[in-house]
Amino acid sequence: MLDFTYNVPTKVAFGHDAEARVGELLAEQGATKVLVHFGGGSVVRSGLLDRVLGYLDEAGIGHVELGGVQPNPRISKVYEGIELAQKEGVDFLLAVGGGSVIDSTKAIAYGLAEPEHDVWELYEHVRTAKACFPLGSVLTISAAGSETSNSSVITNDETLEKRAYDDDLARPRIAIMNPELTMTLPDYQTACGCTDIMMHTMERYFTSVAPTMELTDGIAEALLRVVRDCALILREEPDNYEARADVMWAGSLAHNGLTGCGTDGGDWSAHMLEHEVGGMFDVAHGAGLAAIWPHWARYVMADCMDRFVKFAVNVWDVDPEGKTDEEIALEGVAAVEEFYHSIGMPTNFAELGIEPTDEQLEKLAHDCAIACGGTQGSAKVLGEPEMLDVYKMAAGRA
Amino acid sequence: MLDFTYNVPTKVAFGHDAEARVGELLAEQGATKVLVHFGGGSVVRSGLLDRVLGYLDEAGIGHVELGGVQPNPRISKVYEGIELAQKEGVDFLLAVGGGSVIDSTKAIAYGLAEPEHDVWELYEHVRTAKACFPLGSVLTISAAGSETSNSSVITNDETLEKRAYDDDLARPRIAIMNPELTMTLPDYQTACGCTDIMMHTMERYFTSVAPTMELTDGIAEALLRVVRDCALILREEPDNYEARADVMWAGSLAHNGLTGCGTDGGDWSAHMLEHEVGGMFDVAHGAGLAAIWPHWARYVMADCMDRFVKFAVNVWDVDPEGKTDEEIALEGVAAVEEFYHSIGMPTNFAELGIEPTDEQLEKLAHDCAIACGGTQGSAKVLGEPEMLDVYKMAAGRA
Repeated sequence: MLDFTYNVPTKVAFGHDAEARVGELLAEQGATKVLVHFGGGSVVRSGLLDRVLGYLDEAGIGHVELGGVQPNPRISKVYEGIELAQKEGVDFLLAVGGGSVIDSTKAIAYGLAEPEHDVWELYEHVRTAKACFPLGSVLTISAAGSETSNSSVITNDETLEKRAYDDDLARPRIAIMNPELTMTLPDYQTACGCTDIMMHTMERYFTSVAPTMELTDGIAEALLRVVRDCALILREEPDNYEARADVMWAGSLAHNGLTGCGTDGGDWSAHMLEHEVGGMFDVAHGAGLAAIWPHWARYVMADCMDRFVKFAVNVWDVDPEGKTDEEIALEGVAAVEEFYHSIGMPTNFAELGIEPTDEQLEKLAHDCAIACGGTQGSAKVLGEPEMLDVYKMAAGRA
Repeated sequence: MLDFTYNVPTKVAFGHDAEARVGELLAEQGATKVLVHFGGGSVVRSGLLDRVLGYLDEAGIGHVELGGVQPNPRISKVYEGIELAQKEGVDFLLAVGGGSVIDSTKAIAYGLAEPEHDVWELYEHVRTAKACFPLGSVLTISAAGSETSNSSVITNDETLEKRAYDDDLARPRIAIMNPELTMTLPDYQTACGCTDIMMHTMERYFTSVAPTMELTDGIAEALLRVVRDCALILREEPDNYEARADVMWAGSLAHNGLTGCGTDGGDWSAHMLEHEVGGMFDVAHGAGLAAIWPHWARYVMADCMDRFVKFAVNVWDVDPEGKTDEEIALEGVAAVEEFYHSIGMPTNFAELGIEPTDEQLEKLAHDCAIACGGTQGSAKVLGEPEMLDVYKMAAGRA
């Protein structure tokens, strides 16, 4: 295994009515005036925003609101947030929403901490952050894990570049997680979220590091089994609190680093391949991942066979008796596909509802390679030609 | 499941030569002069202390040393540390050692932050802490989990009372964890440490809360299987880095709260019963736990059967086919006993090397009940008569 640093300082308040603790938690952080950042109408329509503002009022904490964050959060909204926060003199940023809102809040936090620099430079990777403003969230969607992660993804309005920046400085101070808030999500979004959560751990699981850390593997496998089981439960019972809670907590643990301790960070090719598809076709991130992963898996499998065998046996209960490693690994991938279908997720581009032309596939591969700095992967290192191979498989043309 | 707060802000630097990062990590914390606190001769003889002081010198961080912490750390040494730290004007406390040294450091940290109060009052539970001085550790023993936990246990020299105080304020800022530092521990101490680590998770696992959180259970079960397997490996290969690393990381995760999310905190009767035995007979904590747990388990089993069945099947691979719940649960307890024997741990008082008289058993039960405030437990609530029953079973007299 490799050496690692683990640094997840976020204080998590988890459970029924957790948002009622927002005043107490912000007071602990010394907050006196807060920028409340949110997205579209759902947190307004549900009354959540009003409840949060009411709790802040009760705690004597001032606030100013900024809504309108889009699903792929834009740098223009980030600039707007920085300007508003400076003008209003806030001392804490509170996201009320899912990953996009939290990511936008992280970008505002970077910008506020170093106002002499353009925050987009971080996402362009031409400098690294030296400081970050304190932030936290009231989470409404289980998926991205941004509530305890060091990651954020921002899109540049002008160039439409979608870029990620990871830095422990942006780990949120607090995360308020009430599973009940996720009960009204559409089934499709719940399934996309579960897929994304599992993928955050699967990306870390498929690595060339050997041996891996047994404890990390055991935690990762347990998390994958639980999210799989809960995703199936939630198809039938969207109001099942226990399943909502397991998925919400898994969303944080899947992407805060815990499931990658001792590895090289993982593979992340499937994520990078999906980012380009999401940019070109505006598909949901989780669904895009489901459409790509099985093809990536079969393409890279031979280079990382031990991990695929372990994954098949320990997560998907494949019986290894009398089978070759490849047979076991392929049964594992087939089990993932069957699971995706059972929760309404696609397993290829046609099921995802897109039909890229050959030229579009080539552009996807070209742009993906550029976004990755040439190559990507740990289970297997992919360059542009290999990326194109995977895209072709997903398109049924290989 | 129950609502919970999860708050583990400790930055962990894990791996080979991790102690070489002490200067960088303390500088990040703004430390300029550090009290280096340690125990007996082993950190001196091994050269670790000198290396750590050298790294501090290289980083330009001043330091003052205080050694002599005993295995059951004493309040007198804590007072000595508070006085020295005040006199020297340190701004950070660094423990170099295992749980006793870290616990002593936590007590010093409480005392420094509120010098107008006697720190022992916290351990007497007549007040709660309002603040705590920043601290961290270079860990040398995998067992207590104090490096990321909120717990500390201190003994009063005069009364010999051994008392615990838990508060998130005392969560260490940094934990430096190099598994290689644990390779020279005697086999018996390694086995005691593995037993203690597993017990920190088992105490949380056996609870009357139903349903529990599936993700918490899955993580707990994975941790128990990994520590069991590593304990067996380390009997044969004390220098096995991978096993040392898994055990060290498990020691932190087993007691920082992760394996108890969504429960009531767990049972803890076995720990409380052992504390009294440890106080009367000066036995190693891990060995004392091993000698008591199987008897506690059989005594409380009927009140918490579902958990004992799950534990037997998921951790100890008991085949449930055609068996009653009680048979499955009893096979699980027998498997734990077999495991204890295989790593040189006792499973009763005779094997622990103690022979308490009937009067001593009664005194143990009486004192344990007082220490618990009358009753203890979640799997089953025990009062003084029930505590005496368990002690009698461990003594082979029930």
